[in-house]
Amino acid sequence: MAFQVDVNCDLGESYGSFKVGNDAEIMPCVTSVNIACGFHAGDPLTIAHTIALAKKHRVAVGAHPGYPDLMGFGRREMQITYEEAKSYIIYQVGALQGFAKVFGITLQHVKPHGAMYNKALKNEELAEAIAEAILELNSNLIVFAPPKSVMAKRATKAGLRVAYEFFADRAYNPDGSLVPRKMAGSVIEKPGEVVERTLKAITEGVVEAVNGEIVELGTIHTICVHSDTPTAPKIAQALRSGLIKAGIEVKSVGQFI
Amino acid sequence: MAFQVDVNCDLGESYGSFKVGNDAEIMPCVTSVNIACGFHAGDPLTIAHTIALAKKHRVAVGAHPGYPDLMGFGRREMQITYEEAKSYIIYQVGALQGFAKVFGITLQHVKPHGAMYNKALKNEELAEAIAEAILELNSNLIVFAPPKSVMAKRATKAGLRVAYEFFADRAYNPDGSLVPRKMAGSVIEKPGEVVERTLKAITEGVVEAVNGEIVELGTIHTICVHSDTPTAPKIAQALRSGLIKAGIEVKSVGQFI
Amino acid sequence: MAFQVDVNCDLGESYGSFKVGNDAEIMPCVTSVNIACGFHAGDPLTIAHTIALAKKHRVAVGAHPGYPDLMGFGRREMQITYEEAKSYIIYQVGALQGFAKVFGITLQHVKPHGAMYNKALKNEELAEAIAEAILELNSNLIVFAPPKSVMAKRATKAGLRVAYEFFADRAYNPDGSLVPRKMAGSVIEKPGEVVERTLKAITEGVVEAVNGEIVELGTIHTICVHSDTPTAPKIAQALRSGLIKAGIEVKSVGQFI
Amino acid sequence: MAFQVDVNCDLGESYGSFKVGNDAEIMPCVTSVNIACGFHAGDPLTIAHTIALAKKHRVAVGAHPGYPDLMGFGRREMQITYEEAKSYIIYQVGALQGFAKVFGITLQHVKPHGAMYNKALKNEELAEAIAEAILELNSNLIVFAPPKSVMAKRATKAGLRVAYEFFADRAYNPDGSLVPRKMAGSVIEKPGEVVERTLKAITEGVVEAVNGEIVELGTIHTICVHSDTPTAPKIAQALRSGLIKAGIEVKSVGQFI
Repeated sequence: MAFQVDVNCDLGESYGSFKVGNDAEIMPCVTSVNIACGFHAGDPLTIAHTIALAKKHRVAVGAHPGYPDLMGFGRREMQITYEEAKSYIIYQVGALQGFAKVFGITLQHVKPHGAMYNKALKNEELAEAIAEAILELNSNLIVFAPPKSVMAKRATKAGLRVAYEFFADRAYNPDGSLVPRKMAGSVIEKPGEVVERTLKAITEGVVEAVNGEIVELGTIHTICVHSDTPTAPKIAQALRSGLIKAGIEVKSVGQFI
Repeated sequence: MAFQVDVNCDLGESYGSFKVGNDAEIMPCVTSVNIACGFHAGDPLTIAHTIALAKKHRVAVGAHPGYPDLMGFGRREMQITYEEAKSYIIYQVGALQGFAKVFGITLQHVKPHGAMYNKALKNEELAEAIAEAILELNSNLIVFAPPKSVMAKRATKAGLRVAYEFFADRAYNPDGSLVPRKMAGSVIEKPGEVVERTLKAITEGVVEAVNGEIVELGTIHTICVHSDTPTAPKIAQALRSGLIKAGIEVKSVGQFI
Repeated sequence: MAFQVDVNCDLGESYGSFKVGNDAEIMPCVTSVNIACGFHAGDPLTIAHTIALAKKHRVAVGAHPGYPDLMGFGRREMQITYEEAKSYIIYQVGALQGFAKVFGITLQHVKPHGAMYNKALKNEELAEAIAEAILELNSNLIVFAPPKSVMAKRATKAGLRVAYEFFADRAYNPDGSLVPRKMAGSVIEKPGEVVERTLKAITEGVVEAVNGEIVELGTIHTICVHSDTPTAPKIAQALRSGLIKAGIEVKSVGQFI
Repeated sequence: MAFQVDVNCDLGESYGSFKVGNDAEIMPCVTSVNIACGFHAGDPLTIAHTIALAKKHRVAVGAHPGYPDLMGFGRREMQITYEEAKSYIIYQVGALQGFAKVFGITLQHVKPHGAMYNKALKNEELAEAIAEAILELNSNLIVFAPPKSVMAKRATKAGLRVAYEFFADRAYNPDGSLVPRKMAGSVIEKPGEVVERTLKAITEGVVEAVNGEIVELGTIHTICVHSDTPTAPKIAQALRSGLIKAGIEVKSVGQFI
C-alpha cells in the first residue's frame, strides 16, 4: 500500500489591514490549513475569508490557537495557568467551529501556535489543558503534534486522534527538537533538500539532525510547511509535486488517520 | 392561562483581573443571562466561570456580543461594514457555543450589546448582518430585541424566534426608545416602581413614557434588569418576587416562546 | 524667492510581526514622516526603528495618533467624547515624544490618522480636543491639516502653527474634500500626473476636482504621499525629483513655516 | 535628625468602564502614586483623572509600566527581548510624561509592575533594559526597587537615583523576597502589625521573615501599600498616622533622596 501524507500550513495570519503571508498562492499546494483564531493573529473577517478559500480548494481546516499576545505574534512564552490555557483553547476553537458551521465544513484538527505549541511539547500541565479542552469541545478533532512529544502523549491518553507532524523546512536537533529560528541553518530553504528530507521522514521515519545523527521519528502523518518566507509558495509547490512524483498519496489527514 | 415571562441580565462583564458586577448575587434572581463574549468585556476564564454559575442556578445562557472596543465597553458607536458585523457575531457567538458544549448546556439566545444593540434597533444593514450570522450559525437561537425594532423585524424575517424585551429599570420616550443614560431620570431606581411598570408591560402591553403618553409595546417575553448599579441585586430580587406574587410565571424564555 | 515644500508620508505602520509598508524605500524620498503611535498601528519597537531610520535620513518626525482600533486600522469612525479624544492625543503624542528624546531628535508635528483625521476636518469638538491636547503638551508642535478645514482653523485659533496639506495622489471633490477611496478614480497612480497636480497646487494654489471645477486651496506647505500602494516608493521618488527639477525647495516644514 | 519616608501605592488601575480600586480613598493617605500606563491596566482617561487627583492631594506621581497583557493584568511572566523591554518602558513612561506636562507636574519616579517588577529583581538583562530606557528618557527619574535587588544595582550603576522599597503588607522570605500571594499568610491584613513591621524596617532596617529569621534590608526610602484589598484605605490611613505618631516624617521621596 502506498504511503499517505498530509501537508499543512499556518494561514489566515493577517489581522485587519495588516496583510501578511501568501495565502492565495499556498492554499492550492496544501491539504490542511491551520487558521489563526484571533489571539496571536487572525481577526473574524480574515478567518471567514481563509475558510472560504480553503473550502474552494477542498483543503481541510483546523484551528491554530495561540497565546493572547498580538504584539508578539504568540511567539513569546507566557506563564498561564491550567484553567487559563483550557479556556483559551475552548474560546478560540469554539470561534473557529462557529465559522466552520456557517461555511458548511467540518473542523478537522487543532494545532497550537508558536510559544504555546513549543511549551506543550514538554510541559505536562499545558498539554493536558489543551487535550482536555479539545476533548470536551469536540472529541472528533485531531491534534497535530510531533511524535513522542508530551502533547502527543497527552492527547492520545485523552482518547484523541493525533497526527504526527514533521517540519519539512526546519533543521532538527539530535533529541528530535527543532533548531531555534535564530540559529544559523535553522531553516532549510532549498526546495530539493526539503523534498528529500520529507521523503525520508515519510518512508523511513527518520531525519538527519544538524550534527549528522539519525533521529527516529516513527510514523509521520502530516508535513508542516511555513508560510512566512518569500519562497514559501515555491517550497509548498515543490513538496507537493515531489511527494506525488515519489508515489506518495497527498491528502487531508482526516481521510486516513 | 397565566402570563409567562423571562428575566434577563448582562453578566460575565469582568475582564481578567478587572472584576465588575455582582454576578453571584444577581444570578439566582434571573432566568436568562447575557454573557459578554470577549470583545467589549469578558475573557475566556470569565465566560467559563459565568456559565458554570448559570448552570448551577439553572439559568438559561445567551451570548452578548459587542463591538471590538474594550476601552469603551462597546458603548461607542463604530462604523463597521456588513461583513465585519456578520463575522464579529459568528466569532463571538461561536466562542460561547464552544463553552456551552463543554459545560453540557444549550445556548438559548443572542442579545447584542451596547452601541451595537442600539444601532441594530434602527439600522437595516446591521440588523440583517446580525440576523444572518445567527441564522447560519444556529437557527435555534432566540434573538432578544425590543418589539417593533428593526432588529426584531429582521430576525423574524430571517426565520428566527424573537423574544420581545422590556427594560424594567429604564425610562421610555414616547416613540418607544429608551431615555439616554446621561439624561436625568433615565434610570428607575425604586424597586417598587420597577415592579409596577413591569407588571403593566406584561399584562397590558404598555408603558408610560416620560411625558405621560402611553406607549404600546405589544407582547413582552423578557424583562431586562441591569447589573451595573449597586442596587441591581435588590431590584432583580424585588422584580422576581413581585412577578411571582402577581401570579406571573417566571421562567427562561426558551421554555415558552 | 523659490517655493518651499515638505513631502510627508505615514510610516511605521507595522505592528509586531505584522510587517507592512515599504518604509526603507520611502524614507529617503520624503522630508517628514508621520509615525503611528500604537493605537491603530505601530508598536513600541516599530516606533523606535522608524525614528532611527528617519534620523539616519535626516527626515523630520511627527506623531500620527489614531483611534484605539487596531482591528480596523483606525479607519472606522468611533464616537468618542471630547475628554477621551484629548487624552488619546496626549497619550500617543507623549509616547512619541519619549522616543524622540531617547533618539535625540525633536518631534516636529502631529497629524491625526484615518477616521480621526477625517472627522476633525469638519467636527468642531474633535478638532478642539486635538488642538487643546497638542497645545498643552507642546506648543511648538506643528499641526498638519488641509487648508480651510475645521482642524486647521481650530489649531490656528489655539495659537499652533498649521502646515496646510495637499494630497498628491488623491482625487478631489469640488468642495475640497477627497474622493473616498472606495470610489473609482479616487487614487491617482500615474507618477507624472501626481507631479503635475502637485506643482500646480504649490505654485498656483489650486487643484482640478473630478468634475473639472477648479478648487482654491491657498498656500500649501506639505504634500502627502501614501505608503500603502506597491507603487508608493516610485511615486514618492518621482514627486521629489519632479519638485526639485521645477525649482522647488523640498525640505521639512519645520524649517520654513 | 528624624527618619523620613515615602508611602507609595499603585493607583489608576481601572481600564475604561472597568472600575477597580479605591483611588479616592487611598490618595490622601500616600505621598507617591504609581500610575498604570495602559499596558496591563490604565487607559488615557484614567491616567488623566488619576494625575488630577494626585495633584489635588499634592501626591508625587510616578509611572507604573508593565507587560502588554491586559487580560493577565501584567502579572504573568512574558519572555520579551532587551529591545522590546526598553521600548515598552520608553513608550509607557513617555506617555505618562505627556500627561505630567499637561497637568503641570513633574514625573517623580518609575516603578515597574507585577511580573516585570518581579523578573527585574533577579534578571540582569531586563533590569538593564529598564534602567537604560529610564536613563535615556529622563535621568531625573527615581527608580523604585527593593534594596539589594538586581534592579536596584543596575539603576544605581546607570547613574539613576534608587528609592529602596519595603512592602508593608507582605510577608518576607528569609532571602528578602516576598512570600508569593497564593501562599497562606502572604498578605498581612492587620493594620497594627503592618505599622509595627514598617517602623522596624525604617528605624532598624530589618524585617522578620516567615520563619522568624531576621532579614537585613538596609535603608528604606519608600513603603508600598497595596490598593487591591478592601481594607487598603484603612491600612494606608493607619500606616500614615502610625508613622507620624512615631515621629517619622512622611513625604514624597523626591524631596529627600
